[in-house]
Amino acid sequence: MKENDFVKAKIITIGDELLLGQVVNTNASWLGEQLNANGFQLVSVLTIGDGEKDIMDALCSCNDVDIVIITGGLGPTADDITKPILCKFFNTELTLNDDALENINEIFRLRGSQMTERNRLQAFIPKSCSYIPNRFGTAPCMWFEKNDTVYISLPGVPFEMKSIFTTELIERLKNHFKPTPYARRVIMTTGVGESFLADKIQQWEEALPDFMSLAYLPQYGMVRLRLDARHEDEKFMQESLDSEVEKLKDLISEHIFAYDDRPISEVILNILKDRKQTLSTAESCTGGSIAKMITSIPGCSSVYKGSFVSYATEVKENLLNVKVEHSVVSKEVAEQMAVGVRSIMKTDYALATTGIAGPDGGTEENPIGTVWIALATPNCVIAKRYNFGKDRQNNIERSCITAFEMLRQYLLNN
Amino acid sequence: MKENDFVKAKIITIGDELLLGQVVNTNASWLGEQLNANGFQLVSVLTIGDGEKDIMDALCSCNDVDIVIITGGLGPTADDITKPILCKFFNTELTLNDDALENINEIFRLRGSQMTERNRLQAFIPKSCSYIPNRFGTAPCMWFEKNDTVYISLPGVPFEMKSIFTTELIERLKNHFKPTPYARRVIMTTGVGESFLADKIQQWEEALPDFMSLAYLPQYGMVRLRLDARHEDEKFMQESLDSEVEKLKDLISEHIFAYDDRPISEVILNILKDRKQTLSTAESCTGGSIAKMITSIPGCSSVYKGSFVSYATEVKENLLNVKVEHSVVSKEVAEQMAVGVRSIMKTDYALATTGIAGPDGGTEENPIGTVWIALATPNCVIAKRYNFGKDRQNNIERSCITAFEMLRQYLLNN
Repeated sequence: MKENDFVKAKIITIGDELLLGQVVNTNASWLGEQLNANGFQLVSVLTIGDGEKDIMDALCSCNDVDIVIITGGLGPTADDITKPILCKFFNTELTLNDDALENINEIFRLRGSQMTERNRLQAFIPKSCSYIPNRFGTAPCMWFEKNDTVYISLPGVPFEMKSIFTTELIERLKNHFKPTPYARRVIMTTGVGESFLADKIQQWEEALPDFMSLAYLPQYGMVRLRLDARHEDEKFMQESLDSEVEKLKDLISEHIFAYDDRPISEVILNILKDRKQTLSTAESCTGGSIAKMITSIPGCSSVYKGSFVSYATEVKENLLNVKVEHSVVSKEVAEQMAVGVRSIMKTDYALATTGIAGPDGGTEENPIGTVWIALATPNCVIAKRYNFGKDRQNNIERSCITAFEMLRQYLLNN
Repeated sequence: MKENDFVKAKIITIGDELLLGQVVNTNASWLGEQLNANGFQLVSVLTIGDGEKDIMDALCSCNDVDIVIITGGLGPTADDITKPILCKFFNTELTLNDDALENINEIFRLRGSQMTERNRLQAFIPKSCSYIPNRFGTAPCMWFEKNDTVYISLPGVPFEMKSIFTTELIERLKNHFKPTPYARRVIMTTGVGESFLADKIQQWEEALPDFMSLAYLPQYGMVRLRLDARHEDEKFMQESLDSEVEKLKDLISEHIFAYDDRPISEVILNILKDRKQTLSTAESCTGGSIAKMITSIPGCSSVYKGSFVSYATEVKENLLNVKVEHSVVSKEVAEQMAVGVRSIMKTDYALATTGIAGPDGGTEENPIGTVWIALATPNCVIAKRYNFGKDRQNNIERSCITAFEMLRQYLLNN
């Protein structure tokens, strides 16, 4: 892939809380995705604390890129210090901005509460910047230019940052820089490990054209394949990508559950929506995670009727008509849970999980990590035993993915 | 706080997938937390792509710190390039390491599958490093020393990275550097915004001793307060922190739900466990998220019986005995859901949610973001209406926190 003529960006995220590990830096990955999808190349993310010297050093180290995006350090409390440093760096001073003040006033009016003096101070911004409104909070967004580099300072609250970036910034950046066309395909696979996948597609990968590159992104029982391309001729690039994806499909079609970056829960929802069929779930060891994965997708209610999170054994017995004869972690219980919830919720399909998520509770027969997953359909009930190891989170996540994959495989063939 | 004599660390995370926004950098925040809790100071996190020049530049820019932790770029597929660059930087060469090969063999033996040539290549590591075993995967962990700085290269897979760091690295680092004592208190608050909180505790904050510092960490309906201290006299430091927390308690006790960094769901679980009482939930708009928050905590099963995720109206009606006369988003429905699930699951308390999470589905009476939350207790049922705005995720998260807080307030007084 040509790299020289990219419009390059750096992100500086400011906040002791990021270094102390109390907040995960989701802003950086979100911004990376947005920049990339619009033809910009993010070359680095630097996270630093709320210290003047570190912030100043970071600002000074950015003259090799075209865009610098700074998030954080703009809230109303005393630990915010970004604005004075921006003034120093751009050799300007803080001044009351009428638009910013009006915006803060408006936000407090909508909330029906009183503006404090702390919030009024948020309307003071460096004189030399363009003020970009933040309709979603009291912190300002600021656009600076210096030696052909654009510097943008944004609040760190993810919801505000994302809203401003989407509604105000991305078009301004495109108009300013006119980046070279860029495109990407993401192919989602499950049921096969990274090394085996790599062996299966090695020849295809080696024959990819120069302007493309491939990356493997393994995660909880899935491997995402990302195919990137960048070319002046956008039509040619898009066609080339489609053609490569077709070749890949011939090699590993049974493992592919999506041709874009979407969760398997959404794939299942869409298949069922097309078939006008419905789903319910009964979750023991996954404890609501399957339900959450489905219900986080807008518009799921025509397909998904609901879940029994039957954590207690008596709930399984009384509500799902499960007879526990031997162990609650067993083929029989998983199957009865799936059949029970399918019948009670009157759905076409039902998924059920029962297992030992850990870190305690294992037995000789059922060591920690043992999970039974069952699928009830209009014609049959099937169950399979897995062991996903001792890590509770890993266990729960992989159980969810595997349950969805069990249903997907069934739907492919029936 | 004194800053000069900290043992300082930098993290370099390598991976195009981080810059393209396909993976969130959870490794960095986890490592930050671990370093901090053991008396090291993380001064920056730099995320860069899989490019030789960027990785080399990053390594060369680290001689101002004591510890450099490099994660990522060590997997078995072709897009991994870290090891050759490490060789160049440390002026050494790749050599087959017998311990590494034995470790990879052992992992494939446990998995019962065949080692590929790609995996065998993972046993080649730079000659000048100390090999540190990774019992959880095939990628190596490597420890280098150069001009008083320790460089550690770790695999990027979070589970492997965390396991190696915890079991092998933290003690080695402490023995090597003997860092100054450091301590932290985290105070979790809910039901009050950042600005108002800051006003309430301003005088206390201004009177804090020099070796302490305070930060505000707002997130989805909560504000975490973090009080950091660092002092040679560890006993004095701990006592001073306790005394400051006591003063804070006098100022804002009603808003504090925990004195350490734990979720409100865990606080509720512990209160109920002490009282030997039980909880169930009926979730519509939160769709399993409340259940997930509870069941992600090990040992929840003595308190938490389960949840009805009643997404469909007919499920509410048939299974929870709810009569929907007017609208499913109403006081009556929320109350009946709570009463219904409490009775069916035979628990002491029950929480229920019904609302319009967005982005669609609002009406004039119930605009998007409207949520009714109800609590059923042995003595009464209460319900309250909220509006958390148009963002689906924000809406769901805040509904969950608010439901837990409703129960917590009740338990405080009853």
